[in-house]
Amino acid sequence: MLKGFAIPRSPLGIAALIPPPPWHFAGEVLAVEYWSDPELSAYTLPRGVEPDAKSKGHAVALFTEYQFTARNEEHLDPARYQCHGFLVLLDAMWQGSPIAWCPYAFVDNDAALLRGWICGYPEKLGSVHQTRTFAAGSPASAPLARNSRFAACISSHGQLLAQARVTLRERLSHLVGLLDRPIVTRRYFPSLSAGRLETPAVDELVRCILENVVITNIWVGEGALAFPETFGEELDILAPIKVGRGLRFSFSYSVSGCKILADLTA
Amino acid sequence: MLKGFAIPRSPLGIAALIPPPPWHFAGEVLAVEYWSDPELSAYTLPRGVEPDAKSKGHAVALFTEYQFTARNEEHLDPARYQCHGFLVLLDAMWQGSPIAWCPYAFVDNDAALLRGWICGYPEKLGSVHQTRTFAAGSPASAPLARNSRFAACISSHGQLLAQARVTLRERLSHLVGLLDRPIVTRRYFPSLSAGRLETPAVDELVRCILENVVITNIWVGEGALAFPETFGEELDILAPIKVGRGLRFSFSYSVSGCKILADLTA
Amino acid sequence: MLKGFAIPRSPLGIAALIPPPPWHFAGEVLAVEYWSDPELSAYTLPRGVEPDAKSKGHAVALFTEYQFTARNEEHLDPARYQCHGFLVLLDAMWQGSPIAWCPYAFVDNDAALLRGWICGYPEKLGSVHQTRTFAAGSPASAPLARNSRFAACISSHGQLLAQARVTLRERLSHLVGLLDRPIVTRRYFPSLSAGRLETPAVDELVRCILENVVITNIWVGEGALAFPETFGEELDILAPIKVGRGLRFSFSYSVSGCKILADLTA
Amino acid sequence: MLKGFAIPRSPLGIAALIPPPPWHFAGEVLAVEYWSDPELSAYTLPRGVEPDAKSKGHAVALFTEYQFTARNEEHLDPARYQCHGFLVLLDAMWQGSPIAWCPYAFVDNDAALLRGWICGYPEKLGSVHQTRTFAAGSPASAPLARNSRFAACISSHGQLLAQARVTLRERLSHLVGLLDRPIVTRRYFPSLSAGRLETPAVDELVRCILENVVITNIWVGEGALAFPETFGEELDILAPIKVGRGLRFSFSYSVSGCKILADLTA
Repeated sequence: MLKGFAIPRSPLGIAALIPPPPWHFAGEVLAVEYWSDPELSAYTLPRGVEPDAKSKGHAVALFTEYQFTARNEEHLDPARYQCHGFLVLLDAMWQGSPIAWCPYAFVDNDAALLRGWICGYPEKLGSVHQTRTFAAGSPASAPLARNSRFAACISSHGQLLAQARVTLRERLSHLVGLLDRPIVTRRYFPSLSAGRLETPAVDELVRCILENVVITNIWVGEGALAFPETFGEELDILAPIKVGRGLRFSFSYSVSGCKILADLTA
Repeated sequence: MLKGFAIPRSPLGIAALIPPPPWHFAGEVLAVEYWSDPELSAYTLPRGVEPDAKSKGHAVALFTEYQFTARNEEHLDPARYQCHGFLVLLDAMWQGSPIAWCPYAFVDNDAALLRGWICGYPEKLGSVHQTRTFAAGSPASAPLARNSRFAACISSHGQLLAQARVTLRERLSHLVGLLDRPIVTRRYFPSLSAGRLETPAVDELVRCILENVVITNIWVGEGALAFPETFGEELDILAPIKVGRGLRFSFSYSVSGCKILADLTA
Repeated sequence: MLKGFAIPRSPLGIAALIPPPPWHFAGEVLAVEYWSDPELSAYTLPRGVEPDAKSKGHAVALFTEYQFTARNEEHLDPARYQCHGFLVLLDAMWQGSPIAWCPYAFVDNDAALLRGWICGYPEKLGSVHQTRTFAAGSPASAPLARNSRFAACISSHGQLLAQARVTLRERLSHLVGLLDRPIVTRRYFPSLSAGRLETPAVDELVRCILENVVITNIWVGEGALAFPETFGEELDILAPIKVGRGLRFSFSYSVSGCKILADLTA
Repeated sequence: MLKGFAIPRSPLGIAALIPPPPWHFAGEVLAVEYWSDPELSAYTLPRGVEPDAKSKGHAVALFTEYQFTARNEEHLDPARYQCHGFLVLLDAMWQGSPIAWCPYAFVDNDAALLRGWICGYPEKLGSVHQTRTFAAGSPASAPLARNSRFAACISSHGQLLAQARVTLRERLSHLVGLLDRPIVTRRYFPSLSAGRLETPAVDELVRCILENVVITNIWVGEGALAFPETFGEELDILAPIKVGRGLRFSFSYSVSGCKILADLTA
């Protein structure tokens, strides 16, 4: 009997790209709140997801660095299970309730790609960097302190897709008005049978169930954000027309599964 | 309406990782024929696929370098659409007919990963290199000529998984007894709903339909092949107990779709 | 006694990044001839190298893929000794004779970086891709034939630095008016002693001695070339104001040493 | 006039791989103390550096992650100026005084390569990972706490070169008996002139001058360390015959220059 939650299924089940949930994540985020052109960003929504008229294109760009583990101390295999990522979350509505929709996402390893796809995030490979903070004081340390500056960037296939700067101003005890919506994504796996190429094998709107969410070391200040023009990508269509707060925080959460909101193949 | 054969589905349909079929491939292969332990390799076969008793563990390890295009001159975007790969094909039987089964496969970019998964290849990211041949004569050129030597290697997450050497002896007009079986793979996409983690959303045995197959510049000689012991992988279980011919050839083919042989979720 | 032509010097001499000359190279080039702004490109010339007034900014951008070997079949270690590169060569004058000057160069591995620096090329790491040609006919093959199209790109640290397109029109038996000048470079190794940071330990103008040069499979046609604006680089200052021929060819040559033209520390 | 501390020298001086000192570094280290075979490790010492008879092969393997800045907020360009590294330091003697000698070192970007070479570290490119610690509690967080476990690995050109595990047991206010020796390295830049290939252009024993050294968040416990057998490298000759403490700490320091101890070309 072949074993493994994901491919490759194998005799021992240790070759699989990812272990079964529950999955645990811990990391750092550099984020910039912004507003995209609401008319343009509406075009990135799938059937059933509506623009949030009150939000006027409100979105957040997140640069992440995180460590993953499941049941087998995967965090002790950092070459496989550490990850850098970038994603955009757009305010939107699902059946009258506010949600965050993820139109584009990037990570830098294969385990994270597959994990993302299974969760409905449309991950591509990218190279993501953000300024880190270190405990030993130095001009190189980027302390978590007033006026400290951080930067982040994402490139994919050799093109710069996004750049951000954040200047910290004050520490917060809670995030307010940001990252407080359930994230809705789309699990999508194409068919490859002749005559059925237009009909995906899996096409589900889902809500990932986040548990044990911790957000701490929250600093807020000014943000700057740019999505340069590129070819072969459409992120620049969601470029900022106004930029809001910049944030840096530490996070952790767990994922045991997702809830299917709608089967779009029906 | 969102467009695109694959994720991310987008307003213009140009952000998708891969365009719709037909897909065209052209490249080079360094291959080593070998025999794995038939009792061990039988454990890598899924339900319904049987060992080929006559083959006694016969297999081939293929190191590939190829270029991809669909309808839009994707070969002019080499940063996205060139690829290096490695895979193993094992002799096996499906409903009484000889097939080749792919237990493990690796590629080095995201488009190839997703294309592979949609075709049923259990791709992981790897770094693959093979000696190239160049037209201008030099000690560095590795000509296609008697006694010329080639090498290849694949590593993944910083571990060396396989190494091969081939010494060319003679040019062939046709491959005989190798790569003449239809390739059977498994399209597999997990569920992530609570209570259904054991039941994949897609689990199909498929046969990829290869069209316009060209194999040329075929050279055969001696091969050498090793699968070093690694952690987090199971390729070494399929290590050679005997090694056969080494080969180098150029290839091209097209893929328009696959045929579903069995739905394993049933 | 420690052994090795380069660092790290080691007991057996096999850890060194590069073996001693003679070095042999074989590969493929996609090249675009162009004219930079001669007033701007003159600023990239070191002391003693003069603009070539007749050339009016004439330059060539070369995207390369090559294999390296020295005495120990290094081409059978492709993970270490294959390389992709990009460089610009500007027409210039040295003591009244026409030369080609290399202001910027990029490669994608450490052996090539060090080899370049020792030869005087100011290499940085870059990711370089070019369309390849394959023997098996296919829409993906990019044949060496009239009207066939090729593309190339170079990015460094996630920014796209240059892009080229070439459409083949005819095969040539010889390159004329291009790549016919000796290449002059600058071997430069800084001091790190307090009070001597301004005075490099090595600062030599040199001419690399190329032997056994073979250029074959030469195709010429139209070229297109762009150097997008970037930060942290100055390649865009040398951007084309006019573009000439596009070329694709195969090459090989050997290097046994260089000739020192001038010691700039004097 | 061309500007820049290092190559490429350029009109504006912003293309150079590295800015001039002073250089500031801040980061994290996972370290394992060990003993190599003193007879074998003695072979890695250059002329003038002697084995430390009292140390009996005492050494330390360091896995580092750090951020760099000079005068221009380089830490806000993390794609260029963050780095992961690995190095070995061997106890040795220079003119009767205890020193630490660096036989092998690896980093993962070009700025760090060149900075290392200028300082005398024999850097090659490697891919280095270590378990990180994050502020938000989670099974994925690897807290700095008793019994917490960390791992690290380094691979180069697709081969695993070293692996380490550390289990934290107690927090220390100071490191004792480790990393308390001045580091001696060898600045080495080959000649390439015919007839002078055996005589490097630069060959200096130097001591890097570390200023503002901060070591904090020091945890000590058990270590495990392995240097697997590889080809094309000689690190395995320095493999542990006994393993001592495992450590994790944060650090920062600055470098303004180095002191030349001996000119080995003389």
